[in-house]
Amino acid sequence: MRDVAVIGIGCTHFGEKWESSFRDLFIEAGAKALEDANLAGEQINAMYVGNMSAGRFIEQEHIGALIADYAGMATHHIPSTRVEAACSSGGLAFRQAVLSVASGYEDIVVAAGVEKMTDVEPGASTDALTGAADREWEGFMGATFPGLYAMIARDYMHRYSLTREQLAMVPVKNHYNGARNPIAQFQSEITLDTVLKSTMVADPLRLFDCSPITDGAAAVIVAPLERAREFTDTPVKVLATAQASDTISLHDRRDISTLDATVAAGKRAFGMAKLSHDDIQFVEVHDCFSIAEICAIEDLGFCRKGEAGRLTEDGQTAIGGKIPVNTSGGLKACGHPVGATGIKQVCEAVQQLRGEAGKRQIDGARYGMTHNVGGTGATVAVHIFGV
Amino acid sequence: MRDVAVIGIGCTHFGEKWESSFRDLFIEAGAKALEDANLAGEQINAMYVGNMSAGRFIEQEHIGALIADYAGMATHHIPSTRVEAACSSGGLAFRQAVLSVASGYEDIVVAAGVEKMTDVEPGASTDALTGAADREWEGFMGATFPGLYAMIARDYMHRYSLTREQLAMVPVKNHYNGARNPIAQFQSEITLDTVLKSTMVADPLRLFDCSPITDGAAAVIVAPLERAREFTDTPVKVLATAQASDTISLHDRRDISTLDATVAAGKRAFGMAKLSHDDIQFVEVHDCFSIAEICAIEDLGFCRKGEAGRLTEDGQTAIGGKIPVNTSGGLKACGHPVGATGIKQVCEAVQQLRGEAGKRQIDGARYGMTHNVGGTGATVAVHIFGV
Repeated sequence: MRDVAVIGIGCTHFGEKWESSFRDLFIEAGAKALEDANLAGEQINAMYVGNMSAGRFIEQEHIGALIADYAGMATHHIPSTRVEAACSSGGLAFRQAVLSVASGYEDIVVAAGVEKMTDVEPGASTDALTGAADREWEGFMGATFPGLYAMIARDYMHRYSLTREQLAMVPVKNHYNGARNPIAQFQSEITLDTVLKSTMVADPLRLFDCSPITDGAAAVIVAPLERAREFTDTPVKVLATAQASDTISLHDRRDISTLDATVAAGKRAFGMAKLSHDDIQFVEVHDCFSIAEICAIEDLGFCRKGEAGRLTEDGQTAIGGKIPVNTSGGLKACGHPVGATGIKQVCEAVQQLRGEAGKRQIDGARYGMTHNVGGTGATVAVHIFGV
Repeated sequence: MRDVAVIGIGCTHFGEKWESSFRDLFIEAGAKALEDANLAGEQINAMYVGNMSAGRFIEQEHIGALIADYAGMATHHIPSTRVEAACSSGGLAFRQAVLSVASGYEDIVVAAGVEKMTDVEPGASTDALTGAADREWEGFMGATFPGLYAMIARDYMHRYSLTREQLAMVPVKNHYNGARNPIAQFQSEITLDTVLKSTMVADPLRLFDCSPITDGAAAVIVAPLERAREFTDTPVKVLATAQASDTISLHDRRDISTLDATVAAGKRAFGMAKLSHDDIQFVEVHDCFSIAEICAIEDLGFCRKGEAGRLTEDGQTAIGGKIPVNTSGGLKACGHPVGATGIKQVCEAVQQLRGEAGKRQIDGARYGMTHNVGGTGATVAVHIFGV
């Protein structure tokens, strides 16, 4: 098993990209990553692409070949593979890229993620996203994703005395960070009132508790660690790549406000990296809804169950706090182009570890973690990076 | 890089499975594979699932987690990943399983493929399948898959003097083989007249030149070669796993009747396995349309360009011939549940190499090849197996 490093990153601006097609988006992200790694396209050996539902959003499957083709790489016939795991498609595409380099089958590999969500009506995008849940037992019964996470939020608030205000502090903090991230869909700070007075989506979750519908793409390039310095002065090591699954339906879980796949993937990742929680200086978690960030902090073990609300209220998850969470702005402020999110998280980790995160920079960051969730937690990918 | 072996196989009957859901199908195939490998579910470390378009066919994404869950494997939180590459989804899922074992990250891994195509109207399935082509430049212009392959057939017949009768001999041979395969959708022999008098679909391709719409699932289990005999007395070695891409649109190719991705993947596979064409005793090729088998035989190098029609007419691709092609019955007679086909090909290769192919058996088979195509050749996976 070979060690693997990230040698290049690229990300489009996330948002409602009316002027860019699906193809335009991934070409922009891929070109930026190649430039960042000082590579020409011909040096790429393979590609992995995370995408959740281009079949529903743009009536296109066969995304791996499409991307290789439009990126000009079909002519040298590289392998190009789409990976799908709902909202964790990007995280799993990254993991497959790491495994392919670790295996020795490939050397220089692109892991990309892309989603173009605004080419359909809002109702159609909500319905497509329901494909991440159990269509037969959740979707066909009328459950939407905000509805499922609202059930998690209600259960959690009841059991752990989380206040509505504490929950609202998650998006307030993430908008603060997003306002310092040039790729973020929303670059404006908000107040508690913005969240608490926003439209109710699924009680208790309001509009500002929910990540938005977004177009965007992100790409990173991985290589064997031993070759990384051929391409960059600032390689970032992949210290752990862990993935876990759980029941696809929320009602089949032993406990709906603990994501057991997060717990399992987190433990595996710490074991692989031989690091403890105190070593990790920042974590990008999957805040598709504000409650999801609360659960993730706990399920990854950064505090005990029931304590993440207080941790957030105390500013310990903000930049400068004990464990900064979602310095990028998270899914809430960056936006959530589903297949791209897991790769964007890697881009943020790499920027932090290179010291290139600008106004979001964690001083002297040496180790960071990313956490990408599919559905309500049926798939989770956790990665640890270090310099 | 560790060597990898197939230790178990399982396949549902392929057909119009009105009595089985998507979930039922993969559970049946997976259970058969576990039984074949003398394994319990708890011994599985990871899963890869090939599926093209469950989003369009059954409104469900997140297929990896769904399968892990319904197979009872979510409780121990194994990684489970969907791979999509249109009609080569199964071949690529198998390849990712091989890479994950080769990397050392996983030991005992299921590679499965599943597609449930008959739950939508015929027009909707044809439209979903168009997602394998370039939706913007082929699909939206009115091209269907039979139409695209008809263009290949016309071009090929014009340039290489293939006769309509020679082309019809492909499905006649494949139905002969399928009549000897218990999992095949069509288990009846046909004559040249059956093909030549069948309904025209896209000139020159008639109904019996086209693989059908099919429900089905297949699963295989791979393990490190060094551990294979813990589970089976008849391990089958994976001697090569090659994958290549090409332009997604047919009109962007230098030559529409040569699939360059097949040429590239084939050469890589022979190089990896250190074998020559004379060593290979049978090959399962991707005969989505009769012309596709003709092209595949040539593009893989089993004869020169323009000679596969004569080879077929001379009976050299039949069981007992120089290079038996599609002993399973191929996509034509087995049916083509898109995501499952690449895995079914592996099942056939393993049955042949174990000497368990019954009336389809190639005497003393030691090496065999599988060839799985996505779209009109934008993705190709070629594997070589040996005992």
